[in-house]
Amino acid sequence: MKAITLLGSTGSIGTQTLDIVEHNPDKFRIVGLAAGSNVEMLARQVRQFRPEIVAIGNEAKLAELKDTLSDLDYRPIIVAGAQGTIEVAGYGDAQSVVTGIVGCAGLLPTIAAITAGKDIALANKETLIAGGPVVLPLVEKHGVQLLPADSEHSAIFQCLQGVPAGGLRRIILTASGGAFRDLPAEKLASVTIADALKHPNWSMGQKITIDSATLMNKGLEVIEAHYLFGLDYDDIDIVVHPQSIIHSLIEVQDTSVLAQLGWPDMRLPLLYAMSWPDRISTNWEKFDLVKAGDLTFRAPDRVKYPCIELAYAAGRAGGSMPAVLNAANEQAVALFLSEKIHFLDIPKVIEKVCDKHRTDLTLTPSLDDILAADVWARQMVIEFSQQFTA
Amino acid sequence: MKAITLLGSTGSIGTQTLDIVEHNPDKFRIVGLAAGSNVEMLARQVRQFRPEIVAIGNEAKLAELKDTLSDLDYRPIIVAGAQGTIEVAGYGDAQSVVTGIVGCAGLLPTIAAITAGKDIALANKETLIAGGPVVLPLVEKHGVQLLPADSEHSAIFQCLQGVPAGGLRRIILTASGGAFRDLPAEKLASVTIADALKHPNWSMGQKITIDSATLMNKGLEVIEAHYLFGLDYDDIDIVVHPQSIIHSLIEVQDTSVLAQLGWPDMRLPLLYAMSWPDRISTNWEKFDLVKAGDLTFRAPDRVKYPCIELAYAAGRAGGSMPAVLNAANEQAVALFLSEKIHFLDIPKVIEKVCDKHRTDLTLTPSLDDILAADVWARQMVIEFSQQFTA
Repeated sequence: MKAITLLGSTGSIGTQTLDIVEHNPDKFRIVGLAAGSNVEMLARQVRQFRPEIVAIGNEAKLAELKDTLSDLDYRPIIVAGAQGTIEVAGYGDAQSVVTGIVGCAGLLPTIAAITAGKDIALANKETLIAGGPVVLPLVEKHGVQLLPADSEHSAIFQCLQGVPAGGLRRIILTASGGAFRDLPAEKLASVTIADALKHPNWSMGQKITIDSATLMNKGLEVIEAHYLFGLDYDDIDIVVHPQSIIHSLIEVQDTSVLAQLGWPDMRLPLLYAMSWPDRISTNWEKFDLVKAGDLTFRAPDRVKYPCIELAYAAGRAGGSMPAVLNAANEQAVALFLSEKIHFLDIPKVIEKVCDKHRTDLTLTPSLDDILAADVWARQMVIEFSQQFTA
Repeated sequence: MKAITLLGSTGSIGTQTLDIVEHNPDKFRIVGLAAGSNVEMLARQVRQFRPEIVAIGNEAKLAELKDTLSDLDYRPIIVAGAQGTIEVAGYGDAQSVVTGIVGCAGLLPTIAAITAGKDIALANKETLIAGGPVVLPLVEKHGVQLLPADSEHSAIFQCLQGVPAGGLRRIILTASGGAFRDLPAEKLASVTIADALKHPNWSMGQKITIDSATLMNKGLEVIEAHYLFGLDYDDIDIVVHPQSIIHSLIEVQDTSVLAQLGWPDMRLPLLYAMSWPDRISTNWEKFDLVKAGDLTFRAPDRVKYPCIELAYAAGRAGGSMPAVLNAANEQAVALFLSEKIHFLDIPKVIEKVCDKHRTDLTLTPSLDDILAADVWARQMVIEFSQQFTA
């Protein structure tokens, strides 16, 4: 029985994690739950999974949550706000913390969990992208495992299990190509929010679906892969694979290529991150190559999708630059989703912010440096975005 | 430095193995070489790799070999015949024996190598298919490794490296579909030997190329996979994959699917069998998914290719039946290659022989039982084939 704490319990990752826990009551129990502001769903989850501690990120909702849970037959600790989420992350005897919080907000709770000696099932890539220079030394210091729970990095991690140390030569991240994969570049000027939210293969949250449409998601995954698996950026490739069947591949030193495949279902990488180094039997739909149909591959269009180059450049610059890239992207996507800027403005405003950061780039940032860079980048996006109108 | 003995040194597997040894003089040295009857090539190999012992299978060529090597500046042991090959297999301090002998002739030398405590890089699938009930207990008794060196089973073996014990749920063997993949079934009646020898993807010996055209090769691989990886026949599937890029796949208990990919190049599985559990760096052409093109998959046509069902049935019958299937196939292919029977007669005659064997099937055969079944099956093929005319 593994004790699990789940951050972001009412989101896409959170509900899928709880689906796994529900179907494996002999394998997992929930120690802590943290959500953002969905009181109703969080309260239902508390009744079902009976955590010892619960956090609601939106402090204004604390009273409502307490009220909703007033007839509970046991007394969980109920906390709120960013500090409450951090408290849940490090609480009790949870062995593993599933980080399903979207964006850079996951950074401090993840650090709290690592510092408390908990393994991380990392479904919040921004934590590593922004916080890599701070998170990786902590992971080493506290001897915890950083287990990727997104489909691409889980694929790489699964393929790597049998590879001798030092044997990894290249990573090939597959990309669905996002909502505008088959749209001519010149038509991107007229796309709407609704268009951008139509992901062809995966059902995910809004922010990551927009990141898929800009291919920034893949760029961020390149940086994540760099931190997780230690390869140079020159050895991390992207290939567009519209069917999302091969979740990613690795090349080892004798040129052998290993891949992990399956239906697009986030539960599988989540389950592996939760069960590693074991695997747990499931009755999920068996994969069928014939049913999957033809698998196709093409090189990504780096002109149509400037976010790819922005991400590689930020990754190569290192230090606090990935934090700036990530924060600028989060803010730009938020502005796009609130109709403040256009889809094509997203890479433009990110590029401006990264360029401006270059002059005072911190190569060995502290946590404060990273948090400051994050705040600065968001503000810069808002300032620059005045030049654009949706 | 690993000491290697190579059986079948002048064949397709043999020359590719020596190519690996030549390019890795710091990793491998050759202890013994055994070939069939190609004196000229064997003599060249002896001069280059300086084995301690050499065998020529065809005893009539012994004098010629000795004569050709009379000016050598060292004195290897030179032996001949089936007994000579067995002597080479078990000789000296070789750690690993690469078995590149075609057909059931590899069985006794492989047993000699196992008994002498040597790991087997198995490129001779017939050894295991015919001899499984005898070979597997010997492998266990002598604590040696049986390392698959054909592309499909190497793919499975590579994928399995990181899988927890008991985690394998299904094997999916990919099949190129052979020379007649795109030929309508009704046109098989008029195919020639030359047609059958045109393999679309792999450059291999004649016998295995015919086995590819009948899909018996895949059927034999199903039996091989059963013995190597311990799965029931119901859990070993075949999928036709014309591009031969994905070399095979495994499904593990959480439904995750792992695959090994690469250009069709036999050197890679050979190298892995020779270097396992390590891997050795090569400068072979990097794999490129975009260049590989679309990957397609379809279910095999079990009516057009009756050898598939014959192999599954023989595997399920167990005992000496796979030995009979294999010997009948070898003999039938030989008759086809000498224009004694037609392509479509191959499965017919095999089926007749297997049916006849069913009445006195030995479920726990000894080595003698297997060898007797082998001899019997070949003779039956010749008798039955009188009914067919090419």
